[in-house]
This record gives sequence, C-alpha cells and structure tokens, in this order.
Amino acid sequence: MTRLGNMHGPDFTYLGVPKADLDDESTYSDADVVIIGAPFDGGTGHRSGCRMGPMAIRGCDYLPHDGSRPHLSLRVDPLRELKIVDVGDVLMPAGDTEKSLERIGEAVRKVCAAGAVPVCIGGDHTIALADITGVARHHGWGRVSVVHFDAHADTGDIIHGELVGHGTPMRRLLESGACRGDRFLQLGLRGYWPEPETLEWMARQGMRCFEMAEIVDRGLDDVLTEASRIALDDCDGVFISVDIDVVDPGMAPGTGTPEPGGFTSRQLLDSVRRLCLELPVVGVEVVEVSPPYDHADITAALGNRVVLEALSAIAARRRGEPVNPARPLLEGR
Amino acid sequence: MTRLGNMHGPDFTYLGVPKADLDDESTYSDADVVIIGAPFDGGTGHRSGCRMGPMAIRGCDYLPHDGSRPHLSLRVDPLRELKIVDVGDVLMPAGDTEKSLERIGEAVRKVCAAGAVPVCIGGDHTIALADITGVARHHGWGRVSVVHFDAHADTGDIIHGELVGHGTPMRRLLESGACRGDRFLQLGLRGYWPEPETLEWMARQGMRCFEMAEIVDRGLDDVLTEASRIALDDCDGVFISVDIDVVDPGMAPGTGTPEPGGFTSRQLLDSVRRLCLELPVVGVEVVEVSPPYDHADITAALGNRVVLEALSAIAARRRGEPVNPARPLLEGR
Amino acid sequence: MTRLGNMHGPDFTYLGVPKADLDDESTYSDADVVIIGAPFDGGTGHRSGCRMGPMAIRGCDYLPHDGSRPHLSLRVDPLRELKIVDVGDVLMPAGDTEKSLERIGEAVRKVCAAGAVPVCIGGDHTIALADITGVARHHGWGRVSVVHFDAHADTGDIIHGELVGHGTPMRRLLESGACRGDRFLQLGLRGYWPEPETLEWMARQGMRCFEMAEIVDRGLDDVLTEASRIALDDCDGVFISVDIDVVDPGMAPGTGTPEPGGFTSRQLLDSVRRLCLELPVVGVEVVEVSPPYDHADITAALGNRVVLEALSAIAARRRGEPVNPARPLLEGR
Amino acid sequence: MTRLGNMHGPDFTYLGVPKADLDDESTYSDADVVIIGAPFDGGTGHRSGCRMGPMAIRGCDYLPHDGSRPHLSLRVDPLRELKIVDVGDVLMPAGDTEKSLERIGEAVRKVCAAGAVPVCIGGDHTIALADITGVARHHGWGRVSVVHFDAHADTGDIIHGELVGHGTPMRRLLESGACRGDRFLQLGLRGYWPEPETLEWMARQGMRCFEMAEIVDRGLDDVLTEASRIALDDCDGVFISVDIDVVDPGMAPGTGTPEPGGFTSRQLLDSVRRLCLELPVVGVEVVEVSPPYDHADITAALGNRVVLEALSAIAARRRGEPVNPARPLLEGR
Amino acid sequence: MTRLGNMHGPDFTYLGVPKADLDDESTYSDADVVIIGAPFDGGTGHRSGCRMGPMAIRGCDYLPHDGSRPHLSLRVDPLRELKIVDVGDVLMPAGDTEKSLERIGEAVRKVCAAGAVPVCIGGDHTIALADITGVARHHGWGRVSVVHFDAHADTGDIIHGELVGHGTPMRRLLESGACRGDRFLQLGLRGYWPEPETLEWMARQGMRCFEMAEIVDRGLDDVLTEASRIALDDCDGVFISVDIDVVDPGMAPGTGTPEPGGFTSRQLLDSVRRLCLELPVVGVEVVEVSPPYDHADITAALGNRVVLEALSAIAARRRGEPVNPARPLLEGR
Amino acid sequence: MTRLGNMHGPDFTYLGVPKADLDDESTYSDADVVIIGAPFDGGTGHRSGCRMGPMAIRGCDYLPHDGSRPHLSLRVDPLRELKIVDVGDVLMPAGDTEKSLERIGEAVRKVCAAGAVPVCIGGDHTIALADITGVARHHGWGRVSVVHFDAHADTGDIIHGELVGHGTPMRRLLESGACRGDRFLQLGLRGYWPEPETLEWMARQGMRCFEMAEIVDRGLDDVLTEASRIALDDCDGVFISVDIDVVDPGMAPGTGTPEPGGFTSRQLLDSVRRLCLELPVVGVEVVEVSPPYDHADITAALGNRVVLEALSAIAARRRGEPVNPARPLLEGR
Repeated sequence: MTRLGNMHGPDFTYLGVPKADLDDESTYSDADVVIIGAPFDGGTGHRSGCRMGPMAIRGCDYLPHDGSRPHLSLRVDPLRELKIVDVGDVLMPAGDTEKSLERIGEAVRKVCAAGAVPVCIGGDHTIALADITGVARHHGWGRVSVVHFDAHADTGDIIHGELVGHGTPMRRLLESGACRGDRFLQLGLRGYWPEPETLEWMARQGMRCFEMAEIVDRGLDDVLTEASRIALDDCDGVFISVDIDVVDPGMAPGTGTPEPGGFTSRQLLDSVRRLCLELPVVGVEVVEVSPPYDHADITAALGNRVVLEALSAIAARRRGEPVNPARPLLEGR
Repeated sequence: MTRLGNMHGPDFTYLGVPKADLDDESTYSDADVVIIGAPFDGGTGHRSGCRMGPMAIRGCDYLPHDGSRPHLSLRVDPLRELKIVDVGDVLMPAGDTEKSLERIGEAVRKVCAAGAVPVCIGGDHTIALADITGVARHHGWGRVSVVHFDAHADTGDIIHGELVGHGTPMRRLLESGACRGDRFLQLGLRGYWPEPETLEWMARQGMRCFEMAEIVDRGLDDVLTEASRIALDDCDGVFISVDIDVVDPGMAPGTGTPEPGGFTSRQLLDSVRRLCLELPVVGVEVVEVSPPYDHADITAALGNRVVLEALSAIAARRRGEPVNPARPLLEGR
Repeated sequence: MTRLGNMHGPDFTYLGVPKADLDDESTYSDADVVIIGAPFDGGTGHRSGCRMGPMAIRGCDYLPHDGSRPHLSLRVDPLRELKIVDVGDVLMPAGDTEKSLERIGEAVRKVCAAGAVPVCIGGDHTIALADITGVARHHGWGRVSVVHFDAHADTGDIIHGELVGHGTPMRRLLESGACRGDRFLQLGLRGYWPEPETLEWMARQGMRCFEMAEIVDRGLDDVLTEASRIALDDCDGVFISVDIDVVDPGMAPGTGTPEPGGFTSRQLLDSVRRLCLELPVVGVEVVEVSPPYDHADITAALGNRVVLEALSAIAARRRGEPVNPARPLLEGR
Repeated sequence: MTRLGNMHGPDFTYLGVPKADLDDESTYSDADVVIIGAPFDGGTGHRSGCRMGPMAIRGCDYLPHDGSRPHLSLRVDPLRELKIVDVGDVLMPAGDTEKSLERIGEAVRKVCAAGAVPVCIGGDHTIALADITGVARHHGWGRVSVVHFDAHADTGDIIHGELVGHGTPMRRLLESGACRGDRFLQLGLRGYWPEPETLEWMARQGMRCFEMAEIVDRGLDDVLTEASRIALDDCDGVFISVDIDVVDPGMAPGTGTPEPGGFTSRQLLDSVRRLCLELPVVGVEVVEVSPPYDHADITAALGNRVVLEALSAIAARRRGEPVNPARPLLEGR
Repeated sequence: MTRLGNMHGPDFTYLGVPKADLDDESTYSDADVVIIGAPFDGGTGHRSGCRMGPMAIRGCDYLPHDGSRPHLSLRVDPLRELKIVDVGDVLMPAGDTEKSLERIGEAVRKVCAAGAVPVCIGGDHTIALADITGVARHHGWGRVSVVHFDAHADTGDIIHGELVGHGTPMRRLLESGACRGDRFLQLGLRGYWPEPETLEWMARQGMRCFEMAEIVDRGLDDVLTEASRIALDDCDGVFISVDIDVVDPGMAPGTGTPEPGGFTSRQLLDSVRRLCLELPVVGVEVVEVSPPYDHADITAALGNRVVLEALSAIAARRRGEPVNPARPLLEGR
Repeated sequence: MTRLGNMHGPDFTYLGVPKADLDDESTYSDADVVIIGAPFDGGTGHRSGCRMGPMAIRGCDYLPHDGSRPHLSLRVDPLRELKIVDVGDVLMPAGDTEKSLERIGEAVRKVCAAGAVPVCIGGDHTIALADITGVARHHGWGRVSVVHFDAHADTGDIIHGELVGHGTPMRRLLESGACRGDRFLQLGLRGYWPEPETLEWMARQGMRCFEMAEIVDRGLDDVLTEASRIALDDCDGVFISVDIDVVDPGMAPGTGTPEPGGFTSRQLLDSVRRLCLELPVVGVEVVEVSPPYDHADITAALGNRVVLEALSAIAARRRGEPVNPARPLLEGR
C-alpha cells in the first residue's frame, strides 16, 4: 500500500503536519503522535456521511496551516513540541466492514509499536472496535482504560442483524477482553438507548456510566474527578474516545444520531483537556462528524479543536511541569 | 371525519405508536395518552412553516419506530408502560382560524372525556387557546394550572387587527376564565414584548412570570420549585405548554420568532421532566417547531424529545415510586 | 423476516399505496407493480447519504397520499389502474454489501416470480447488480435489455480494491451473462470516467453509449429512437435503470457523484415516459438520490416523479390504445 | 389604514421606487404602475412561507436601489419611463382569508380606478381570486383575458373543505363570471392534478391549457403565438398571472408545491417579455415565491426579474415603436 | 456625500429609527445615539461575507419596525427614551482599506462631536481601528477604556503582509496611543492565536485578557466585576467592542473565523447589559456577523439584540435610578 | 515569496497536479499550463465570498486526485498529455486591490514568459484586469482577442468611487490598449446593466456582445461561429474569460451577482470546449465562484469542470488531429 491521502478528496494533512506513509515505518518511527484517518461510515445505523469526517476535521481551521498552534491557556505549541505526522486515510470501503476494520486495526497497532500515540479521526464509531483493539494489542490486553464521551453507550449486541457496527463496538471490546469493564468510563449518555437488558449487561461488566442527569446534578468537574481516578487505577494507559454527538446537536448538528440535551462545546473541550493533562493517554479517537449534516463547518471545526485540545494537553503533560489553564492569560508572560 | 394522518405528508404516527381515529372512540377509549397533531400556522405573525411541525416531530428519531423507548435515567419505557395512541392531524386549514380552533378544541375535549392526557403537537401557539380550553372544559373551568415555557408571554390583546393568533392565546384563556391568572406560570420570557400596558394587565391577573434574568440569577432549579409549588396549589390538574422558542435560537433555529438568550436544550428537557414528575399533568403541547427554518432536523429532534421526556416522566410518576434521575445509570441494575 | 417499512424512519409507503410483506406472498401475488426500497449506500465511492433515498422518494409529494395520481398528459391514473403495493425496505446494512445484495436480489426475484414489475428505489447503484440479476433469473438470462440513464457508465472493474460497488455493477452484469452487452444502452454519459481500457472493454461487449455531446448534436428524440429500437430487438423485456445524476447537478444537487452538464429534469421525465410507453418494461430502478445533499427536497421530488412517470406510462401502455402525450390537455375531454 | 410597508420586516419598496399610500390617492393618482404586496400564505395547501415573498422580491437585486433599470435588449428603463410607486403590503393575516382577500381586492380596484396597472407580488395564489376580480370590476366583467403560467391549473373546487385557497382561485373566477373560460390561457401545466372531473369542467368552460408535453412538442414560441392570439381576441385587457412554480423546481426551489419538469428561468422571462410587448396588459401578479425553501435567494431573484421584465416590456410597448429584443446589443447604439 | 442607506440593498434603518445623513449635521445634532453601518469585509483573513452584516443586523427582528422596544427586565424602551438615528452605511469598498477606514473614522468623529454615542455595526473588526480612534479623537487620546469581547485578541502585527486588517486593529490602537494598554480589557479569548511573542507584547502593554478557562473557572460574574473596575478607573469613557465570534460557533455560526468553546448567547447579552449599566459608554461596535454563513438568521438576530441590549442598558443608566434586571417581571407593575 | 498553497486552507493543487513555485522558474519552465489561484474578492460590489473559489474549484471532484482525467468525448487525457502544474494561490489580501492586482499580473506574465498557458481561478472578476494585461504584455499589446462569458459586460467606469473592481476591468483593458475593442467578444449578457452611456462607449470600441435574446433567437452554435471567426481574425492568441454567473443562477447559485435567465451548465461546457478546440488559447480564467452561496458544491463542481473542459480541448487541439466530440462514445475504440 502506498499513501492514500484523503480517501475522498485532495491529499493534505491535519493542519499541515508532515505526511507519513504507513508502509514506510521510517516516516513515523520517531513520531510522538500519528494522525490516522478512518473514513468509514458503513457501520452507521441511521444517517451516513461521516466518511467525509477525516477530510473535514483535518482541514477545518481559519489559521494558516503552518505547523504551529500555540495553545493560549496551556502555553504549549503541540505542533512544535510534539513530533506529529499524518499517515492519511486508511482505505476503508463502506461496504466491507471486515476489511475496513482489519486495516484500521493494523494501522493503529503499527503506530503503537513505533512508540507513538495514534489519533484516529473518523468515520463512524465502529472503528473503536479496531483501533482500541489495536492499542490493547500493543499496550496490554485489558491494561488500557477507556474514557468514552458519547450520547450513546455503543454496547448493543446485534443491530440490523450485524454484530459489528457503530452501536456495538464497546460490547465487542469487553467481550474480547481487550478492555476491562471496570475501567470503561462513559460520559454524556442520555436518551432512550440501550434497553434495560443491555444496561444490566453493562452493570455486570462493572462499567461506570455518567448519564447527563448525574452530570448536571453533580457538576462536570466532580464527575471528571471520579472518572479520572477510576481510569488511572491499575492501568497502563488510557484511551480517549470522543463521539462528537456527546455535544448537544443544537451546537454540533453535523452528526448521524443526534440526541438533544448534551454537553456544550466548551464542556467537551474542557473535559478532553483535563483528562489528557491528568492521564497517560495512549490513544485518541474523534468520531461521528458528518459533514453533509453540518452547517458552516461548525461541527468539523469542533472536531478539529477536540483533536488539537488533546494534542495540546498531551504536550503540556509531557513537559512535566504543573499546568494551570485558568491562570490569567498574560500573567507571567 | 375519518383519520387524516399527517395533513402534509404520509400517514405515520409519533414514533410508531398505534393509530387511532377521533371519530371512533373505541380506538382511544382505554388510552393513557393521545397524540394529536395540530398542523396550523395561520396564527403566526412573522415566519410561518410550523404547520410542518407535527409531521417532523412525529418522525424525527434515529431509533427504530418500534413502540419502545426505555428512558435511561427515569428507568421507564413510556411507550410500553402507557397506552399511547396517535389520532393523526386534525384538519386545520391555515386560512380559517375559527374552524381550525374549533376542531382542535373538540378533539382535545374528546380525548379528555375518554380519560386520557392529550399531547398536542403544533403548529403555532394559537392552538393553546383551543386545546387548553378543551382541557378546562373537561377538568373544570379555572381548575387547571398552566406552566408555560416560552420566550414570549403570548398575552397580547389585538395583533394585526385580530383577536386570535399566536401572540394572544394566553390572554383569551384568562379572559374566558378557562384558566386562572394566579395559576398561570411563565418561564423563559425575554426580549422586548409585550409592552408595559400588557404587562400591567398580566400583573393584575396575578400571573407569575420568570424572565431569563431572574432565572439566571436564582438558578433554574429554584425557579422551578417556586413554579411547581404555585401550580400545585388548589388545582385539579396542570397543563404544560412548551413553545420551542424558549430554547435559544442558536440551539433551536427552526422556529418563527427567534429571540436570542434562551434556555439550553438540556435545561428544557430537565424542566419538563421535573414538572411532569412532580405535577398531575392533564395535558401537554409542544408548539412552534418550524421545519423550513430548521437545520439537520435538530429542532424537530428536540421537539420529539420534549414530548418523549414528558411521556416518560408521566409514566414514572404513575408508578408511584420515588424517582431519582441523577442516580448513577447502572446503579442497582 | 417481517415487514421492515422504512429502514431509517417511520413506516409509510410510496404515495400511500398498500403495504405488502415480502414474506407473505399473498400480499403481492396479484400485484402489477411492487415497490421495493433498497436503502443501501455502502457501495458509494464518494459522498454517501443515498440510504435515505427510499424514504425521501416515497414521501416527497405535496399532493394527498390518497392512492390516486391522474397523469395530465397520459390520461391514466397509475395508482388506480395498476395494482401497486410497496413491500417497504429490504434490510440492507451499509457495511455488509454481500448480504445486502443477496437480500435485494432475492426480493426482486420473488416479485418477478409473482408476475409483477419490481420498481426498486435506492440507495446507490450497486443494487443494480442484484436487482437486474434478479430480473434476469426470472425473465431469462441475457433476455432482458437494459436502458441505463446515468452520467457514469458504472462499468469499472475494481474500485478501492472491491469488485462490487456503485461503479462496477454493469460490468458484473455483463460478465455473468445476466445481460447482453449489445442490448445494454447508456444515455447521458459525460465527464472523465471510465478510462480508455474500460471503454474498450465496453466496446468489445457491443454496448451502445450515448454521451452528452452526441445527444446534444443529434437531439434527444433521435437518440431515444435508436436506443428504443435496439432495446426492443430480440429481447423478452426491458429494464429501465435511472441514476438521478444523469440530470445536471444544477437541477438535481442531491446526489453523490455530481457531474455537470447533464439532462434537464424535463428531458429525463420525457425519456422515461417515452421508453415505458414503447417498451415491454419488466423492471425499473431509480437510484443515487442522496437527501443530505439535497435542497428543499427537489431531487427527492424528481425521484418521486421519475417513478410515477414510469408507472403512468406502464399503465398507459397496458391500455393498448395509442397515446399522444402532446395532445392538448383539454382536447376531447 | 396607514402605509404598512413590508408586513414582515423593514419598510422599503420594490427596487427603491417611491412609496405611496393606498389611503391617500394623491400618492398614486398619476402612476402608470402600482406595486402591491400581498404577504398571504394562508391559502397554501402544503408548504407555507410565501408570505415572505413580497419582501424578498422587492429587495433581491445586487444593483443599487436607485430608481433606474435600463433593460439591455428592450432598450428601455422602466423605472424611469414609467411612473411606478409601491404602496407596500396590504395587511393580510394568514388566518383570516376572507378579510385578507377583501383587502387585496379593494387595493387592486383602487389602483385600477386611478388608471394604473396593478402589479401584485405574493403571497400564495389565492390572491388571484381577489386581484383579478378587482381588475375585472374596473375593466369590465368578463372583458379581461388571463394568461396564467403555472404548474397547476388552480381550478379545484373544494380543498380541505374550503372553497377558497391557492388551489381553487381560477374556478371561482370563472364561476363568478369575472373571467371568461375561453379567454383563460394556461401554460406550463404538468403532473398529476387536477383529476379528470375538474379537467372536464375546465374543458366545458372553453379553457385552453398548454401542458408541458405540448409545449415541448410544438416549441414555446408556437404556443405563445396561439395563446397571444386568443388572449387578444375580443378583450379589453389582459392579466398576466405568474406562479413561480411554472419554472422547474431544480431552478426555482423556493416554492411550496414543486412539480419537476417545468420551464427554465430563461423561458419564463422570454414568455413574459413577449406577452407584455404584444398584449394590452392591465394587471400582473407574481406569486408563490417561498423564501424559507429558497437557496441563495435565487427564486426571489427570479421573481424580482419577472416583475422587472413585465415592467420593461410594458414600457417598451408604450413607446409605440417596434421592438426587436434579439437585435445585437450594441447595434445602432 | 449623500445618504447611502444600506450599501448592499434597500435603504432601511435599524429597527425603523429615523434616517439621518452624515453630511447634514442637523439630522443628528440632538441625537443620543447614532447608528452607523460599516459594510466592510476587506480586512478579513479567512471567510468574508460580513459586509452584509449591517443590513442583516438592522432588519432582523420579528417585531414590527415601529420605533418601540420595551425591554422586559430593564423596564426601559430605548427607542423611545433615547433619540436614536441611523445614518446608514458609510461607503466602504472592500478593496480599498485606507479609504474605507478614513470614512468610518470621520463618521464616528462627527457623531461624537455632535454629542452622541456612535454604535457601529460591521463589517469586520478592522473597523475598530477607525472607530475607536474616532472616539479617542473626541473624548481624549488614551482616555477611553475598551472592553473587548472576542475569541481573538486582534493584536497581530503584520498579517498577509498588511499592517491593517481584522487581526491587528487593537495593536494599532495601542501603538498610536489612542487607547491605553492597561485600560484594554479582553473577554472570551481562546484557541491558538496569537503566538507567544504577541502575547508578551500584550503583557508589556498592561492588557488584561480573560481567556475562557479563567472565565469558566472564576465564573463570568466575577470576571465582569474585575473588568468593570479596571475600565472605570481613571477613564473618561468606555468603548464596548463585540466581535460576535466571542459566542460559540455552535450558537452563532454566521461569522468568519469560528473558534469553538465560547460564550453562550445568554452570557453575551448579560455581559453587555451589565457593562452598559455600570460604565459610561461612549461608543459601541458589533462586528463580524457574516450572513452567508448564517442559518435562519440566528447570528444576525443575535447581533441585532446585542445592539438593542446595549441601547437598553444605556437608556436605563441615563435614568439615574437603580436597576435590578433580576427582579420578577411583574413585580411592582 | 515562497509557495503559499491555498491562501485560505490546506495546500493542495488542482486535481492533484504537481506543485510549482512562482519564485522558482525551474518548477514550471517546461509546463504547458500553469494553474494560478487568485483568491481575491475585494472587488466585488455586492456579495463577497469568491476568495474561497480557488480552493473549492481545485478540490471539488469525486474522482481520485490521481493525475489522470480521460475526457470521454474528446478522447484525450489533459492531465497526462499536457504538463500542468499549480503554483498555488498568489497572496491577495482583499483590502489592498492594487497590491493584489500587481501580484497576479506579475504571476501571469512570468507564466507566459515561460511559454505556458496561464489558467487563473478566481476570485472575483477584478483579476481580469491584471491577468489579461499580463498576457498582453507577453503576447503583444492589442494582439490577444478576448472571448468573455458573463451575465455582465464589466465595462463600468467608476463604481463606488473606484476605478478598479469587478464591474470595470474590461473597460480598463480597452483603455490601456491591452486589448482591442473589436476583438473583444461577450456572450451571455442580460439584465439591466450597464446603462446606455456605457453601452455606447462599448459600441464605439467596436465590441461585439451577444445578449441572451440574440443567443436564444439565433441559437448558441451560430453565435459561437461568429464569435470564433472574429476572435481568430488578425490575432496572436485568444484569452477565454469565464464568469460563472453566465450560467443561470438556478443552476449555479454560488456566485455574487446572480442574474436570472442564463446559459445552462451544458451550454457553457460546450462553448468552452468548442472555442478551445478552434482557437489558439493563450490564457483562461474562471471567476466569481462564491462557495458560501453555493449548495452541495454544485457551482464549485461546475467551475472545476469548466477548467477541465478547457484543458481537455487545448490538449485535443495540440494533437493536431480532427476531433468530433459528437462521435459515438465507443465507435472506433
């Protein structure tokens, strides 16, 4: 395989970081972070379109694509302080889930093996099955905690007759043992799915799920503290999975299964920042951005910033110095 | 009259609940809740389009239309625990307000007489005059409190030379005595309407209106507590009226008279949930969803969920057991 | 399997014709035409979204869904003169092409076996492989001519590493022998695909393709006359395949692979009308309507009318009397 | 009544022509043309929104609103050569059809009485009943021919239980005798409405309707020649009624009842130009532009230009000199 | 120069206030507030379109444009209690920044000289250089504090080779001495711009910038208290500059450089209200509303209301009586 | 200057052709065609946004960006048969017209000097002044004919007080003598601009303008024959200037000054093809594609295809063999 670039358009990289090629390890062997596009929407149960997500997330920024993004409050420039490359999209035909997942899983495994943090931009959430498995293969079966932002638990069993799709990946991950149920944290759930049988199965796995009512009641900070503590306990790394539909569809319309009543954009950015500052992140995915349902690219811009917030916080954490994002912007400059 | 279905499109029901026919009482005589579509936008003073609201609200859900919606935090499945039927739209030509209101009023009265809770999906807010009157006819003149979520008081006197329209229904309801002014609660008001004379008239009726500044200052919970207390006092039932424009137009653009600075979607869902848990609800309306101004169906989805939140809380209340929506999702499963 | 209805929304039928169930042959055994939804977009190589096509095409009409559509110029009412039923969507998960195609192919075969004309509404053009094969199984291998309206030949060999997808079905159909190359007519081709090798392969099959330059030069009528003559020669039936992207994207934006410079809507309607009047149609498909890229439902409305034009002309042909669509509307009334 | 301006927004006039007030005859007593806004959509049977049409049509032009519009091929400047004033919108609440029609009818009558040509911008087609009646009152009962561009005949009898609405005005006009059936010409009809009984009624009235198939078959020029000849025969004036949905929805999406397969924009402009050059026009209406379904204001721009084309041709005709629009642009300059 | 009106459309004023003409001082000599349109987008570095902002902000309101807007919670009617006129747009060709800025600067200076508060509606933020300079020319060089709501500091040095543009005005204002750095307050900054060198320059100027993390951490009220205190200290007036992109793009999509994670609309309205109540405001600007990227006019509506909130609070402040916006709406009526 | 790429987004080239750098002549010294982006919209008099045109036109294609585009009817692959490179955008700040034009003019001159055909993608039509001048500098002052497709003559004198803008470039070109008036052909003009004085000036220059009425009357083929003959007479090269608004806004909404009644997309493609086959083209520009007003990228796609059609015909012409685009697609393969 040679570098594909964006499967559905011109070849460019996330904010202009250097290109790399999955088939040529030398192009990413010294990378801290490797961006991987997963333009797959064959697993969506309702609206499709998120195959266009990787291209939209990569390119949606009004600033020059010049390899620099100094984070105002974290005071780091992740694109300069980390070595970040973008291997482009993995070839993922929507009609062939099995082959698509194999490819993304193998890509993630390679990246982990090279010592880098894979950042997967989807595509639908089906890819979690492949990329988290890929991370677990490298970092240890059951040794990676997952913090999962989503309106939906994605722990269904069989949907439309299929074991694999964007409603089931978390169940498959727990069934395989790639992840431990009691190190699987979910934030932002709401609505009317899944049904009680699945919730009981989840409870039996020891999962900890923060539905919106609990988050509103306790406050997001308190909930994040608990989630962070659990995730950190007896683990070798943490995977951050962000389904953009955790944000209220009123603020992030470009997605396939919009459930009203979610996070604000601000809350998502703050949550990702805090977790990536506090936890040893070994993988990130941002999924379910569906450009055809977006308006003025606002959901794509949010996806772009979620990735960048994670990168920034990872960079800040690596400095090994205390960070206070709330410090006045110009204080100490 | 025979069943009309959706006046402006294919015949289907709210989330696939069984069809019923207003002219055949046997089809809804044992129902707990009856959905009634009111596709009328002849009363709007500015942008029209909400005649398409009932169809959009009925159908806008990414989950299968399969007669089941288990609410995650309330732990009820309203579509299974309640007997809910949908009589389809009432024939409401926009150009004939009088006939339209007569029809919806009569429909609501029939439903109440059958012992069910009418849930009206509009359509513009003009219908409040008819459906709340219909409820009052059955439950007692002046015996039903109203909790009204809206950016606007809808208590105008004469607008565009007309006594009846979406800016005046609440005044007409108080003038007729169908509702008591001191049991009429309004939440979410803001902006620049109505003018002082009308506000003085409202004060004289004993109304209690929570403008956004007060809500921000005191917190929504505190305000809801006060509203709930008043509504419950010396009443035989409560009607919940939700104008979707109570939510900020930034999150709910699909409406006709957008006034910036409103609720978040989350706040509206939480408010409806709480009131339907605490109060003896005898009728609900969700109005002013205007699909031609919507984007990616996000306002229609919100309308769908407001209805479902009300149904869920009604179902939970009927169980007669204490409910704590903020309880951790998997606790006790 | 029981009736699925619309896979991605409420259950309603094409313009309100009666429901049928593929698993219960009695529901369609006396039908003239059976509508089948194929909500599959896993085969699209670029923009997805056409899985929402069947629902949009079924419901997009401003007239009452009342089982009657009197065609003005053909003077037939196809919904009354033909017995038309709608079996709803076939379950087609985008991520499993093989299973999806099997299901639609089997559905079409059943319908043909029952003596009816299948009218498939897609969904992407991949389904042509299954539904035309299904028709050929019943009417005779190589005995059905195909008239194919499209901007693209869809005769690619392997795309994105896949033999099956929306760019290859016509090649597969000729390779299998289901269709004869010299009875495969294509109208509306333009642009920059496929490459010469594929065109040479097509030439070797004896295909006859009318690129837009030829159509503009000769006039559409002349071209249709030639196509009709070839299709009718030594065949037992004709299949009409309409990819909506044959129309200029300026008039039909809601599609996935828009190639400027196509038919007007009027030309497509006239072409379908004429062919269905002149030829013994045994199957129809209308594909590639992609609602998320549509505006104001204009492409969905066009898809709805292409189906209805075909049904009308089929009905008119069955009357066995001469038809002159250009006769003055009121003449002879 | 005092001048209302735009009922749904700021007060400005069609392309900046002077304001006038219906209640002050001196403001329009010497006018050649009077623009009247009819922001009514209470008669629409499906999508509403055209109440916003008058404002959109008035203001939608990229050129300065400076009182000059020199027509390139007709070589006239209608805004300078005619005295044109705009009386603003007539107050037309959607929910009160009767009162709305009375007001627009009276406005048109006044304008005719003042010796001017009324140009009504809608609003839905219901207004035809009022404004053509108004014209007939002044110019003679049954003495005004009508040339009507539309996808629909608008000759229904009772729709949604109502005699009056946008599907019935032409029937009411013939029933009252305001217009003669044999001087009622319709161009652009297509689709599936009305049903045969109504067509037979139309035939009995002696109407002449040019369905799209006839227009395509004979060519638009030939059809216009016939229509023009009939309209001119034994009449005292001609009313031009343009429903924007005569144009294909692919080119004019902003309308409520889109029927694919219509005119191009160019064809409509050419037709209006030719008829207003050849015939003694005594009234014009442009209706059914529905801004909420429009995109980038293209339908509003078309509506603006249809009005301007009519004004230009009326101005050219009044010069009394031969006009050849096809003359090379710079020839003779 | 004569009155231009809206440079890009019909001539109407902000909510129908009286027209004035900059060249005729008598038209605004007794005004309290003068609205000035600045339809310039030549300074935008990314998406353009905000030249259409002034027209959109002026006209976007569902209430009648009747010269009255009684503010519900402030209990003032700014359009009646203040004398407000609108001089229309200043002629500002996008391609000539220098001339454009000269014109707007001179307009603002004239207005200040007449004793009125200029309210500038943009247009891009480049205009701040001209209008704040214009205010400083009148009220004293370095004597006017600035409170600046924005996602971006706009303190860049040279962008795209240009000293002047929408990313640099605040630097130019401090360099010229028009404003003091230690009286320049910024709220809502976030994201990845500007780079550290610029931040250090800002620190050296003594600026006080409240990044979103600090605002979330401390609460908006606390931050406003500090900003208000600084602004009031040793100043002769305060200028309020509102870049609409301070609001989250999820709620205000119609802007050119959307940075996720901002204020809610409610927060912006409350902030503007409070500051205009507490501070001696001598000028206001609302910029960067870009209608082509807006949806359903929600960003334009927000811009309209930000202006109106400022006007209302200015009017309330002038009454000289204590104001409590959180007082129950009907209390004391 | 180093290569800028896309001024407003990621760096990629037109359909993936190789990158080149204007400052390094070796990168384009052997090129046949050089693509130059001109992202300038500071000259637009009404709606802006076309600065985003170059990026949209470069990337808008559903086919792989793989350096091959075999034209179906011309039987050439321009991306392979010509050496085409893309130098990216020229830095063009909207607010500095003079500097922007200097840069694009110099870029074009360099490209011509290197023996290549410049293909400029705009951006607004102001750039014509610079790029046609650049071509004339190299090929001879007054020696290059211009064929100009547009709804507007663009021969204004002073607009908004400016000599330079998108309404005046053609006048400036004739005034300077860069082009001869009697070798300046315009096709597609229509509407109400410019005024008679300007038309008289145009006539005096000997221009030949084909207004739409003449085109409809004579047929496009006939008109093209005349235009081609004039352009070829006594010239050393022909410049093809395509303003996308020559196409009807109903089919190409994404533009700033939409004038209804234009070409179809098909007609534009056929015209460009024919002229580039018949004439010695030395430069091409495609301007006024404004993405924020586009829908589903249909106007951008058309712009992409106009460029590709020109490239294809140039390639076909260079072969020196007769070409018959209307030859049956598979004949002779």
